[in-house]
Amino acid sequence: MASPLDELIRLLGRLPGIGERTATRLAFHVLAGEPEYAHELGESLRTIHERVKRCTRCGNFGEGELCAICSDARRDRTVICCVARVPDLVAIERAGSFRGTYFVLHGLLAPLDGMGPDRLPIDALTQRVKEDGVREVIVATPLSVEGEATALFLAQVLRPLGVKLSRIASGVPHGGELEFTDQVTMGRAFDGRRDL
Amino acid sequence: MASPLDELIRLLGRLPGIGERTATRLAFHVLAGEPEYAHELGESLRTIHERVKRCTRCGNFGEGELCAICSDARRDRTVICCVARVPDLVAIERAGSFRGTYFVLHGLLAPLDGMGPDRLPIDALTQRVKEDGVREVIVATPLSVEGEATALFLAQVLRPLGVKLSRIASGVPHGGELEFTDQVTMGRAFDGRRDL
Repeated sequence: MASPLDELIRLLGRLPGIGERTATRLAFHVLAGEPEYAHELGESLRTIHERVKRCTRCGNFGEGELCAICSDARRDRTVICCVARVPDLVAIERAGSFRGTYFVLHGLLAPLDGMGPDRLPIDALTQRVKEDGVREVIVATPLSVEGEATALFLAQVLRPLGVKLSRIASGVPHGGELEFTDQVTMGRAFDGRRDL
Repeated sequence: MASPLDELIRLLGRLPGIGERTATRLAFHVLAGEPEYAHELGESLRTIHERVKRCTRCGNFGEGELCAICSDARRDRTVICCVARVPDLVAIERAGSFRGTYFVLHGLLAPLDGMGPDRLPIDALTQRVKEDGVREVIVATPLSVEGEATALFLAQVLRPLGVKLSRIASGVPHGGELEFTDQVTMGRAFDGRRDL
């Protein structure tokens, strides 16, 4: 049977980007530190799934039935930004310019990994588009192969509903050097060029 | 009041080498994953201080009154290797050549940080040297300013007991390139040169 310390190292090592060496260092740090801290962090992790819920409306994390954004009457319910994961939503909120609401897919199409269309909450999305009289769905999935495939799939599903569909722009990022821009990004920057 | 998610991010961010960005990534990863994993990791952290005890003999971590090394009759109790922290002991055990026992200081002299000689378990060390008829104390504190100061302090305290004192060798590490060796290490490698 593994010792409690080995067990803790094994569990910490399952976190993304945390290898065995780092997990060992973290475990020893926690053991060398205040028991109160280990207790507080442990309790927070142990109960996080019970205390953080998915918003029944958009899938964002929150504490009640509706998340803070869906509860905010000032947010425009007729414009939905569709994202793959909550951290993407957080990044968009940090930018501060979007005043609509969200829909979190909690995944992307990836048939090779067993993520087929049936694993995405498409029914909930179409239902919301209908019920809220949504005018526009902005698809903000990543600019990756999976993100693009998911965007195309959403377009297929939503187009019959008569809603306006848009995709976030792709191109050279702010401050980006053309010299170090990859070919795909450069191609997109030219394809998406606008009149000056 | 902070949300449970913000609270978890704050607590994770207190771990060494984990900044706010990484803490956020870890928290979202845990939330997106299996509740069982969060529960198991949380429970492990919450109770780690109760389940892992300091060996009453050497200060190493273990599950009972004595650690696995002090419980092992094949280990030589008359040779003690004195280390600053348990990870140092683990590294020495990994090397596999030392067959004596240990004494963990759980700290180093660092007067500027409030670590004076009174914060080190010197009484327990001298008592053990006397009771076990210790022949040699190998001081394996780090080759840093604090480690060297602590080694000198231990020498002062232990010399009157008539025990043999030694310090681990310092020099160019295995595979180390002389070209990239710092001046202090190079000086030590020359000072500690041995006859061929």
